[in-house]
Amino acid sequence: MRKETLDRILKFTEDRDWDQFHTPANLAKSISIEANELLECFQWSDDNYDLEHVKEELADVMVYCIDMLDKLGLDADEIINAKMDKNEKKYPVEKGRGSAKKYTNL
Amino acid sequence: MRKETLDRILKFTEDRDWDQFHTPANLAKSISIEANELLECFQWSDDNYDLEHVKEELADVMVYCIDMLDKLGLDADEIINAKMDKNEKKYPVEKGRGSAKKYTNL
Amino acid sequence: MRKETLDRILKFTEDRDWDQFHTPANLAKSISIEANELLECFQWSDDNYDLEHVKEELADVMVYCIDMLDKLGLDADEIINAKMDKNEKKYPVEKGRGSAKKYTNL
Amino acid sequence: MRKETLDRILKFTEDRDWDQFHTPANLAKSISIEANELLECFQWSDDNYDLEHVKEELADVMVYCIDMLDKLGLDADEIINAKMDKNEKKYPVEKGRGSAKKYTNL
Repeated sequence: MRKETLDRILKFTEDRDWDQFHTPANLAKSISIEANELLECFQWSDDNYDLEHVKEELADVMVYCIDMLDKLGLDADEIINAKMDKNEKKYPVEKGRGSAKKYTNL
Repeated sequence: MRKETLDRILKFTEDRDWDQFHTPANLAKSISIEANELLECFQWSDDNYDLEHVKEELADVMVYCIDMLDKLGLDADEIINAKMDKNEKKYPVEKGRGSAKKYTNL
Repeated sequence: MRKETLDRILKFTEDRDWDQFHTPANLAKSISIEANELLECFQWSDDNYDLEHVKEELADVMVYCIDMLDKLGLDADEIINAKMDKNEKKYPVEKGRGSAKKYTNL
Repeated sequence: MRKETLDRILKFTEDRDWDQFHTPANLAKSISIEANELLECFQWSDDNYDLEHVKEELADVMVYCIDMLDKLGLDADEIINAKMDKNEKKYPVEKGRGSAKKYTNL
């Protein structure tokens, strides 16, 4: 993500003085709420979705994730790489590879 | 986000041959599921949360968002800026500024 | 639902002195969190689910719904019938009947 | 809940021939989506909520729960009591009673 994009997201909140509402708990609720607006695109069908709508809802989820990173002073690369370290240990290639059965059992 | 981080996320899926499970609908479910593991950090208290746990769950949400971008061939900067164009029109600075009352009514 | 079942749910909370944590907002979070544990049963497959697990997670969602009814002094029959009045007007039988296309557009 | 309420919910679906869309997976998505519309009532404030809106969204969650019970041939009292058996063992009164700290650690 480009620095200008991140700056634009934070400036949007700042300009409106909305930082006061962006507690970590409220942002966690917001991420879940937007994630479910995204899920609603697939409520009755897995395949018959409106891509333009999906793009908007996915963007909303990501915007609130970025707000939360900012609020908690976190770095995206850092927390994702720390989690990927764990995931790679938890699901070794040989063990996880392949079948849905294995995947759902992991 | 650095290119190496994005590449690592995609390689993780590829190495395990899990792309077959990553339909847009399944990824939308996964984003919601992880968002709620994040929300669980704040289930009974807004202030008394475990930051290490928050970091992991937020990372999980972001990883599935990146998987979905990849799956649908989308660019994060592009969809976020398109959504910010809309948000900035919908909530003009003068109108949105300030009180929680205004904010919740928007 | 039998009165003994409802009483048992409320007594469980009362015996543990947990009513203090059951604010409406915390219960709303809890309903979403449990709903996503239910959703997790279908994360990678629509058809290949563990019925015993589904039963437990669905029960958890319903228990928190009953806690919320109690907390807000609401009657299940009353709020559901009020909502069904609305739904029946919003989706007249002739209009809503049938195709997925119509359904998703409603 | 009264039998007429349950019957009304099932008749609503039947009259519109919507049972075809009510797969267990789609209902699980729907429960999560409605749970998040309920959560949205508390997005920016725990205390400043619109009770009429809360009632409608809570009713929506419960309606989909009832649809799922019906779809899977389950009995609400049965699955809830089975889960309460587990909960009562998992959280003995002496152990769980009282503080938020204990509660969040459970």
